[in-house]
Amino acid sequence: MTPMSETKALASYVVDNRFSDIPDDVRHEARRALVNYVGCAIGGSRHDAVDIAMRALGPYSGPPTASILGRVEQLDPLHASLMNGISSHVFDYDDTTPKNYSHTTSPVASALFAHASAHPVSGRDFLEAFVLGFEAASRVGNTVYPAHYDVGWHITGTIGVVGAAAAIGKLLRLPLEQMVWAIGLGATQSAGLREMFGSMAKSFHPGRSAQNGYAAALLAQAGFTAGEHGIEGPRGFAAVTAARSDLTKITARLGADFDLRANTYKPYPCGIVNHPTIEGSIEIHRRHHPDPNAIVAVRLRVAPLVLDLCNQQNITKGLQGKFSVYHGAAVGLVRGKAGNQEYTDEAVNDPRVKNVRELTTAIGDPLITDDQSHVEVELASGERLSHFVAQSLGNVNRPLSDRQLEDKFRDQAVPTLPAADVDALIRLCWQIDALDDVGELVAAAVPLEARATARREAARA
Amino acid sequence: MTPMSETKALASYVVDNRFSDIPDDVRHEARRALVNYVGCAIGGSRHDAVDIAMRALGPYSGPPTASILGRVEQLDPLHASLMNGISSHVFDYDDTTPKNYSHTTSPVASALFAHASAHPVSGRDFLEAFVLGFEAASRVGNTVYPAHYDVGWHITGTIGVVGAAAAIGKLLRLPLEQMVWAIGLGATQSAGLREMFGSMAKSFHPGRSAQNGYAAALLAQAGFTAGEHGIEGPRGFAAVTAARSDLTKITARLGADFDLRANTYKPYPCGIVNHPTIEGSIEIHRRHHPDPNAIVAVRLRVAPLVLDLCNQQNITKGLQGKFSVYHGAAVGLVRGKAGNQEYTDEAVNDPRVKNVRELTTAIGDPLITDDQSHVEVELASGERLSHFVAQSLGNVNRPLSDRQLEDKFRDQAVPTLPAADVDALIRLCWQIDALDDVGELVAAAVPLEARATARREAARA
Repeated sequence: MTPMSETKALASYVVDNRFSDIPDDVRHEARRALVNYVGCAIGGSRHDAVDIAMRALGPYSGPPTASILGRVEQLDPLHASLMNGISSHVFDYDDTTPKNYSHTTSPVASALFAHASAHPVSGRDFLEAFVLGFEAASRVGNTVYPAHYDVGWHITGTIGVVGAAAAIGKLLRLPLEQMVWAIGLGATQSAGLREMFGSMAKSFHPGRSAQNGYAAALLAQAGFTAGEHGIEGPRGFAAVTAARSDLTKITARLGADFDLRANTYKPYPCGIVNHPTIEGSIEIHRRHHPDPNAIVAVRLRVAPLVLDLCNQQNITKGLQGKFSVYHGAAVGLVRGKAGNQEYTDEAVNDPRVKNVRELTTAIGDPLITDDQSHVEVELASGERLSHFVAQSLGNVNRPLSDRQLEDKFRDQAVPTLPAADVDALIRLCWQIDALDDVGELVAAAVPLEARATARREAARA
Repeated sequence: MTPMSETKALASYVVDNRFSDIPDDVRHEARRALVNYVGCAIGGSRHDAVDIAMRALGPYSGPPTASILGRVEQLDPLHASLMNGISSHVFDYDDTTPKNYSHTTSPVASALFAHASAHPVSGRDFLEAFVLGFEAASRVGNTVYPAHYDVGWHITGTIGVVGAAAAIGKLLRLPLEQMVWAIGLGATQSAGLREMFGSMAKSFHPGRSAQNGYAAALLAQAGFTAGEHGIEGPRGFAAVTAARSDLTKITARLGADFDLRANTYKPYPCGIVNHPTIEGSIEIHRRHHPDPNAIVAVRLRVAPLVLDLCNQQNITKGLQGKFSVYHGAAVGLVRGKAGNQEYTDEAVNDPRVKNVRELTTAIGDPLITDDQSHVEVELASGERLSHFVAQSLGNVNRPLSDRQLEDKFRDQAVPTLPAADVDALIRLCWQIDALDDVGELVAAAVPLEARATARREAARA
């Protein structure tokens, strides 16, 4: 038994924490998460899913006081949170917390950047709120993982709304009672089905979580009451959404352990469990350059989870390719890479890729870990090429370096921003907690035409 | 096996239905549901929960083109949907579909009235969309009831969003593919925990469902894609939110059977399972007028579900009273009635009510149905007074008459609207499918000052 209910203990931690309570290494990992996030948000900002959401819901926006990373338009902060969430997740290129397979930065940071673009927020307050929101969401996720995920919840959506509520609640300086309500109002909006994977609705989940968590904090601040046991109550989040849960994971070493320390960043824009297979396939391509027409079979031995998550073979859409280990193997072998260009509709329908994809079979092997894959290619000559990835890049034990994160950022941002501006923006991200106003960073993350408009309006005011 | 997936079959039904396909008795039950709904929405429109939500989220509203039933302010149609949903459910006085214990009219009609206040909608189109949205939601509810409800989902919230998506999608004349997406985008926003009962967050659920279902239809219309098996897929709504489900209930006799036929309307503004106990207690009060100070014990024999839902005894808030069968017995015995005035904070803390509440015990008896209750009062003299309710008022077999629905409407609306206007509004509700524009009805359901403002603006234009 804990002396305080879990919801209250979590709320109390978020309310009482000070910036100085956050260890240096966690601050640096937070900066890495934000570098990765801002690059992904800009990279996804021109995706159809964002354009369509803007067209459908933009007319319902309140006064446009907030910026959207990577885009010219402004919306109210709640709608800007939604758009940031869609764009940062739509390529499945954002971060992953392997403990619970959530992509927690997207819903939390999407709300925070929207808020900071409309209100003055210091970099220290921002970084602190991000760390706390991330931790709140991830711990709620740990409590219900894996039963929650296994049954079919998209955990990024379901826990992200709690993290966004806590993070925005921290910036709003909610007192304890209101923070409890904010978490409850977040939990009671938890949503997102894995059935949506492969469609735009997947990226809608972190977007809606950012927007709804933000709204939860605003409602709580105004006095809108919620049940006080939103997470642990008999009809609360844990009991309702998971056949098994472990509430001690909410409070165990709270303030000492940080899930950010185990956060990972993807080298490839697709379901993380495909990464070892992609790496093995790219390695075979690099060493042997097999002629795609000479390939007669590709055999994968992968972790059983891969077939649970990414077993789609007969696909026609780029978004579906992200959840096909067969497609990952095919682009690795045929093209020797797996960047955003390998997850377009065109790439999925490329006859050479399609042919190899359809020659690929996979078996789930309980001896293969989630970071491993064995790839074997059989050629028409009878020759067999194989590679075993023992621990894939992007894994917590083999993380992307800060420099690799910068390269990933640059690749995603240059279609939207001039290269020199991209470098300046990367520097701002690394220095975020030294900024007087994070609005400066957001302003540097929108295209020039938007900045010109903002300057004209400032001059006029 | 059905020839078509359940989501697609349901979408197809909604898309293809014509007004003439709806039987006369269903049309009349729809009018009864809307009379009941509009009265409840006006009755709850001045509740703190609505005031607070207006204060918190009103500043984020888009252009204020939509009216809120019973209120002066205007908001965008999505936010107006939210407010209608809160106000119509906040007193727990709205309708109930006993097959699945959902309050389906609130999320569906809340979105429809908000939409109709901002866009021309004929009464026939409105009534048809309402019937279809209600049916879609209720059938999805039947599929997962009771496992879904038992584990702790507030089914009004979880299925309401699908109903609102279908209803607004019908008015937007979405083609089949987009209707499938709208239902999927609704399903993937399904949310609402019973842990919130007794707080404002409970009424937030149908409000958010109305708003989010409406947004789902707008997104689908613009081309935002969703998974095509949102309800029946292996990681879809049914599998994820219920340990047991029966998907045949989506399609069985679709278009022939209508859940509206089994809809019920509450004589008392609280959890419906308390109603037999309240009626029995009122009956004892009417016959014997026992002195509250002479009561030494109250013993209830109730359906087991009552203790699952309404077992709160130590309460201090009006909203908690709605989920306390003990409070229901106490106000029935002490005050001889159970109207909105018996569910205020004051009533819950009334020493005479509190005393009798605390003397009340209840046992769950599997031989007692959900419509029955046995109430026994023991007096200091040793005398025992008892009453058995065999089938409570408001039950589908003992429904409120049209006249009783009008009386209930009047009681709720007169604090907000002049009595003559209330009668005119009731007539408009009965004639809804004869109206050229339902906006006329909504305009009659806002206070005079709002109508005066609207007239001034019309004159200016």
